[in-house]
Amino acid sequence: MKLYELSLSEGRNVSPFVWRARFCLAHKGLEAERIPISYHDKDQLVFSGQDRVPVLVDGDMVVSDSWKIACYLEEAYPERPSLFGSAAGQGTGLMINKFCDHVLLGSMFLLCTPGTYDVTQDEDKPYFAQSRWEWTGMTIEDIRSMEAEALKRVRSSLEPIRQTLAEQAFLSGDTPAFTDYCVMGGFMWARTTYAPQVLEPDDPVEAWRQRMLDLFDGMGRKTLSLEA
Amino acid sequence: MKLYELSLSEGRNVSPFVWRARFCLAHKGLEAERIPISYHDKDQLVFSGQDRVPVLVDGDMVVSDSWKIACYLEEAYPERPSLFGSAAGQGTGLMINKFCDHVLLGSMFLLCTPGTYDVTQDEDKPYFAQSRWEWTGMTIEDIRSMEAEALKRVRSSLEPIRQTLAEQAFLSGDTPAFTDYCVMGGFMWARTTYAPQVLEPDDPVEAWRQRMLDLFDGMGRKTLSLEA
Repeated sequence: MKLYELSLSEGRNVSPFVWRARFCLAHKGLEAERIPISYHDKDQLVFSGQDRVPVLVDGDMVVSDSWKIACYLEEAYPERPSLFGSAAGQGTGLMINKFCDHVLLGSMFLLCTPGTYDVTQDEDKPYFAQSRWEWTGMTIEDIRSMEAEALKRVRSSLEPIRQTLAEQAFLSGDTPAFTDYCVMGGFMWARTTYAPQVLEPDDPVEAWRQRMLDLFDGMGRKTLSLEA
Repeated sequence: MKLYELSLSEGRNVSPFVWRARFCLAHKGLEAERIPISYHDKDQLVFSGQDRVPVLVDGDMVVSDSWKIACYLEEAYPERPSLFGSAAGQGTGLMINKFCDHVLLGSMFLLCTPGTYDVTQDEDKPYFAQSRWEWTGMTIEDIRSMEAEALKRVRSSLEPIRQTLAEQAFLSGDTPAFTDYCVMGGFMWARTTYAPQVLEPDDPVEAWRQRMLDLFDGMGRKTLSLEA
């Protein structure tokens, strides 16, 4: 099994979508050879019919998009620990995925984009800045100047998650599953690109984040990060 | 089994929380005697140790709070159709519940509060207006003047739901379950208190809402509403 993933300077893994896929693979107890891709060698992904990571290759199967990878793993490896628990859990998982993409990553974007630029290889910095300018009409320095507002938005967008984690250990209940990995992808992006603390120390989300960093032999904790 | 529910002028059932409980009961194929409660006879709820609806009485069990009622029904009637499908689905259900309370009902509040006031019994109108003023610092007419902004906020807060329903028939997948009932509670509040259309006709959320109104022999469709 191979997982194509974004790898920036010093091999940093910043993509929230790749992190979702890595956590899902680990939950299933599966190992994949990790193939690093930079912005300048996206043509290595042509075989997948699109140009974004993660891409999972499992024998003859090629699956791109972290949600589709989660669904593929659930279907192909039903005897291993379930990511969703049930059809209703998987259905709701899509809504969680959309919430994470639209609301959580929407607010994380402003916070994490300047640091992502900083750890992007020098040869790719012009492409990165140009593509963000086309999306948002803002330069990297425009976005950097919004840090205080971005932090406020991230903390506010976490409110339903915060209230849930005040009542149970994981977003999926007593043990972690897809919902946790989907949200944690965003926090891995922050951990690898934003040095200050995103969360107050007494935030229930921070206690959960620490538990998530411990999972799978500290997979998230060990990655090269900007956190103190 | 008895369900204590909010009943306003002409017996209108406006509470999103009561609607969640009614949909959950119907999903389990359970019938409860419905006990109408107005704002001025909340003292009928003293036996439950609190003063909010819904309250479910099942033999010796007294359960208040729509989330706790869903969890109670799932545990007490495991042989009937599951609301969550699995432990992971139930864990994620709490996050859905928090999202609905905080984000969706937070935006619905401005849209539905003036109409809720209008259908509140005359003797309770002063209490209702005073309590909303204490929560928000706004009079009913202040809130009414924000209708256009409120409608924009509701439609925007639905974005993850809209994207999910563009891909599958129900929020819980192919068939409805807790996630659908939780979100639908908010739309039942709108249906009973806000006459204009909340959704554009071509919004995937509107097609889903129509499917939800058809469920359980048209339970939601039959209620006394302000919809044309």
